[in-house]
Amino acid sequence: MFSSPRTKLFLLVALLVALPMRAAHAATGAGADALAAVLEALVVILVSARLGGALFARFGQPAVLGELLAGIVLGNLTLPGLEMLHAEGTRASLDLFAQIGVLFLLFTVGLESDAQRMLAVGPSALLVAVLGVAAPMALGYGVSAWLHPGAEPLMHVFVGATLTATSVGLTARVLGDLGRAASAEGRIILGAAVIDDVLGLVVLAVVTGVIRAADLGGAFAWSDAALILGKALAFLAGALVIGRLLSKAAFRVASRLQGEGLLLTVALAFCFGLSWLATLAGLAPIVGAFAAGLVLDEVHYADLAAREKHASRIEDLLHPLSSFLVPVFFVLMGMSVKLAAFAQPGVPLFALVLTVVAVIGKQLCSLGVLEKGADRIAVGLGMIPRGEVGLIFAGIGASLTLHGQRVVDDAVFSAIVVMVALTTLVTPPLLSWRLKQLR
Amino acid sequence: MFSSPRTKLFLLVALLVALPMRAAHAATGAGADALAAVLEALVVILVSARLGGALFARFGQPAVLGELLAGIVLGNLTLPGLEMLHAEGTRASLDLFAQIGVLFLLFTVGLESDAQRMLAVGPSALLVAVLGVAAPMALGYGVSAWLHPGAEPLMHVFVGATLTATSVGLTARVLGDLGRAASAEGRIILGAAVIDDVLGLVVLAVVTGVIRAADLGGAFAWSDAALILGKALAFLAGALVIGRLLSKAAFRVASRLQGEGLLLTVALAFCFGLSWLATLAGLAPIVGAFAAGLVLDEVHYADLAAREKHASRIEDLLHPLSSFLVPVFFVLMGMSVKLAAFAQPGVPLFALVLTVVAVIGKQLCSLGVLEKGADRIAVGLGMIPRGEVGLIFAGIGASLTLHGQRVVDDAVFSAIVVMVALTTLVTPPLLSWRLKQLR
Repeated sequence: MFSSPRTKLFLLVALLVALPMRAAHAATGAGADALAAVLEALVVILVSARLGGALFARFGQPAVLGELLAGIVLGNLTLPGLEMLHAEGTRASLDLFAQIGVLFLLFTVGLESDAQRMLAVGPSALLVAVLGVAAPMALGYGVSAWLHPGAEPLMHVFVGATLTATSVGLTARVLGDLGRAASAEGRIILGAAVIDDVLGLVVLAVVTGVIRAADLGGAFAWSDAALILGKALAFLAGALVIGRLLSKAAFRVASRLQGEGLLLTVALAFCFGLSWLATLAGLAPIVGAFAAGLVLDEVHYADLAAREKHASRIEDLLHPLSSFLVPVFFVLMGMSVKLAAFAQPGVPLFALVLTVVAVIGKQLCSLGVLEKGADRIAVGLGMIPRGEVGLIFAGIGASLTLHGQRVVDDAVFSAIVVMVALTTLVTPPLLSWRLKQLR
Repeated sequence: MFSSPRTKLFLLVALLVALPMRAAHAATGAGADALAAVLEALVVILVSARLGGALFARFGQPAVLGELLAGIVLGNLTLPGLEMLHAEGTRASLDLFAQIGVLFLLFTVGLESDAQRMLAVGPSALLVAVLGVAAPMALGYGVSAWLHPGAEPLMHVFVGATLTATSVGLTARVLGDLGRAASAEGRIILGAAVIDDVLGLVVLAVVTGVIRAADLGGAFAWSDAALILGKALAFLAGALVIGRLLSKAAFRVASRLQGEGLLLTVALAFCFGLSWLATLAGLAPIVGAFAAGLVLDEVHYADLAAREKHASRIEDLLHPLSSFLVPVFFVLMGMSVKLAAFAQPGVPLFALVLTVVAVIGKQLCSLGVLEKGADRIAVGLGMIPRGEVGLIFAGIGASLTLHGQRVVDDAVFSAIVVMVALTTLVTPPLLSWRLKQLR
């Protein structure tokens, strides 16, 4: 931009004209200090996330693992000049960005979930998904009860629940990087992972509902359950049926409007709207974001897409938003890992056992593969990564209390994070090894 | 997505499998209520902004005006169910989004500013810019002193300052929509608008500095001015010279890293980093964002751009982010317009006089056009829109105090907003009329 000598001369003249006018100045804009701290924190988080991600990408590992570890470093090292990362006001602002980021992530996963694709390998995907939820849950309950005999049974249930959901995003990315997303194994894994995600969210809702009821009222009232179930069902049915009509109608109205950026705005309003409605129905906002993604269909917005200058798919428009905010979510998640907790007796052992059980549980689910040509080992390995959904579960568990005690305490949270990190870490080499064998 | 009967059947089966597991649930995630209110507010703001923008786009007017008026409606009508728009916590979160949004806007304007283009019509653009700052400032001071004889002289100076800066974004968009950005008039307007923006930011810094000094210490100390000037100059020089080297170095390092989204991340870190440094130098964060945009050059990131799947220009990657957050800024700005203030004696008159002076001031600046083939009337008309920068000035003025009184009170703020709205409103028809005459 400033390459030629004439350009430099011109800028110098412009600067000399500007100088006499610049008699003085001072800090402008009240409240700019709060913004400044958030900006500084965002720079540190974004750069750390990318450096961490790049380091792990270099070794063929998913970037999300590097982001998590960057967060662990930032959260546990007390670095001079980085105190603002831990200041309450800044942390609240960063949390808001992270929460919006995870909505974009689940919205994108929902958009990427293709019902047609699941359908072709439907029965296999459904069986794999159901076994892939049941087996890790039972195994997780078992090892949690074995290693924490004194704890609440509901805590074991929650630990089991954190092992259920396969990360569609991570799975799809690993398969995509290996160019095997369209193979029989790839489609079964993706189809099962999609159903798995839905089942996982349902399990999460049930488990948290039971825990909250137990915490507030003691016993779990089934009439309450019916009401809660009704509300959630009304939301899900509404999201899937009315939501779909609403999506069509919203895009039809928008396609008659003038202006730029309408495609993204309608998509964001739909995502935020269903996320908000999910909270009204007592569900987590991510359930709404995921449902919004599932319901939205490219056919709905063909008219608007044809007008877009920048990108014609919502996924592509969301990409920069996710690029910005999703790493904030994972770095903050990493920052919440207390390394000191690892020194507690039993944590390294629990983390290791959880990881083993998480891997075995998803190998068992590959028994659900009905296609003769499909390789069960590859499917089992592809189902291993827990990624973001496991971390979201753990985060929600950390925010729940039962009889005054956190359902997922620092030690269990750390063990789950280690499990997520390890399952994320082992999948790419194992899956790549197996898929290369099949060629 | 759910179009075929088989798909529907499959989803029904999946739902029936999920149902027995869904024994109960309840609200998940503590602190989700705060997020829910922000989500609801974002839906209302995004939808209103687009509807307002589309309505004005239909009549050939800039969308930003519709966003502003949508904000005025939301801020002044007390609608049932929309109380969360005015709740303090939600408002703070929305303000954060708006502040990040305006950084993206100024960053984009900086990126769009092309030194080479200014250079070709350099002397004209420089003269037009200087006259376009001096004339409206003098006229603004005059009419403010005339209509508010009892007010502080520094208030008149601030009112003059709000009239100085032409909106590059709005100007560029109007010219682009008319397909005349590459004409001699278009290049002079764009070149002058770029310098105008820089001069305007300098004027803002000087005026706010003088006001703050006057408010705190009484008289304005020139030694303080030298210090403030030194800090600001150090930032500007650092941003333009070291910043450029830093940009090159950062992209060189990033081009050796693996991973997706590096281009956007480096750009955002650079934008946020300079914005933060600007606050340390006592300048507004937008000055840093604008400088970051000016300094970044496509040549710096050619290596990274070649790797990008989604878009190879930072402007394109920023577009979805701006699409999301910039309307939030303008709607919130509109919400801060108190319609009740219009009823105060003198406000409608002041707004009208300010608008007339704003238009005349920019017609005077067209005397700076040296090219013989270029049409002065078209240049003068193209310089009229004040848009976002005028509103930013007004917002900063509203946050400044002088002897316990706000420099820009509700009435003056409203008059400035009306002026911005009217200059934005009159430009497209006038400029389009003149450019069509020239063909």
